[in-house]
Amino acid sequence: KRAMLETIKMQGHHISGLLPNPSWGPDMLRLYEHYKSQCEVEVEGGEKQGALWQRLPSYNRSIKYATGGAFLSRTIQSKARLFTRNITEPGAGFEYVLFANKKEQKCVCIFQPGHLLEGPPGHVHGGAIATMIDTVTGSHAVFLYGAIMTANLNINYRSPISLGSTVLVESTVDKMEGRKTLLSCKVTSTDGSKLYTEATVIFGKLNNLFKLKCLNKDC
Amino acid sequence: KRAMLETIKMQGHHISGLLPNPSWGPDMLRLYEHYKSQCEVEVEGGEKQGALWQRLPSYNRSIKYATGGAFLSRTIQSKARLFTRNITEPGAGFEYVLFANKKEQKCVCIFQPGHLLEGPPGHVHGGAIATMIDTVTGSHAVFLYGAIMTANLNINYRSPISLGSTVLVESTVDKMEGRKTLLSCKVTSTDGSKLYTEATVIFGKLNNLFKLKCLNKDC
Repeated sequence: KRAMLETIKMQGHHISGLLPNPSWGPDMLRLYEHYKSQCEVEVEGGEKQGALWQRLPSYNRSIKYATGGAFLSRTIQSKARLFTRNITEPGAGFEYVLFANKKEQKCVCIFQPGHLLEGPPGHVHGGAIATMIDTVTGSHAVFLYGAIMTANLNINYRSPISLGSTVLVESTVDKMEGRKTLLSCKVTSTDGSKLYTEATVIFGKLNNLFKLKCLNKDC
Repeated sequence: KRAMLETIKMQGHHISGLLPNPSWGPDMLRLYEHYKSQCEVEVEGGEKQGALWQRLPSYNRSIKYATGGAFLSRTIQSKARLFTRNITEPGAGFEYVLFANKKEQKCVCIFQPGHLLEGPPGHVHGGAIATMIDTVTGSHAVFLYGAIMTANLNINYRSPISLGSTVLVESTVDKMEGRKTLLSCKVTSTDGSKLYTEATVIFGKLNNLFKLKCLNKDC
């Protein structure tokens, strides 16, 4: 039993902890260092200095995210894995890291799509782009408002994204309307000059992550 | 070299040919048999009898689909894999089979999402649902009109889908407008009584699958 626990802990560590990994290209590394350098830094006595940015953790199950990464004994046997963290080979699937800026209500994701995300030859599948847009805006909304579920996803694909390239996925809050949160999302080149994809996303707020019913209703 | 060729052929066969596999549940199998029984049947002399439905092949790269599954020597070394066929463990990822009905301009997909597609605990990730909607409507549009690229994807998520369940993804053609094709898509329970997700999708027609530029423009 202890061995199983260790394995699961190691898997979690492998997926959520080891940032960056050897598959990251120079663009991904540079941007990661750029945002990391603006994150909270511990000063004397373990206190944290206020900072613009904060890295959002990414676990291999959203249930871990909802509980701050705590180990849940009732899911110990479960083989379920977060869709974006189901490929273990570094660089083959979704390589990404998220940073949030609470003051500006903004979230930035550095995303390096791997060769297993192919749609059109040599380019990223529209569904993989949709997945990252849902993930970035969803993580952003969870960070700001707690448990949510996607209600609407509206994506305009402007230009195809090459496999192995590095892009920025940026989420901004448009407004809160009752229990709904509206966000905008853009996928651009790392210098922001080229727009690949843009989207609007609506999330419904939940009282509890386990209450998965009554979406798209004002309940 | 021959060994490599054989391996690649076998991989292709494994992924595109072995339908159904042992992970398919009773609902998936029953629906597969239902549509298959309405497909073309070879009669005496190898001629094909007209039939309502036709199974759409699914390869591990769309470049194979575009060439009718032909082997392409220049991509022999490529590790790229179609996003929906990148998980080799049966039942773990996207289990699906597609049938098209040319007369009714309709396409049906039987979809059994596996445990590696998790979003909310125990349920399918919104991005994985978006991926299947893009795949079904995209395959449908390719079947009817040839090479296309997704221009817009607009999805309403009504109710979460449990991991391991079987659902129907149905695509219908709304209209053709110049070089654009508009389709509607619904994800329902296998008896059609429960609506999980609905979407509209716009595709831009391409002259050539390798011409990946100029989307969302009337070019």
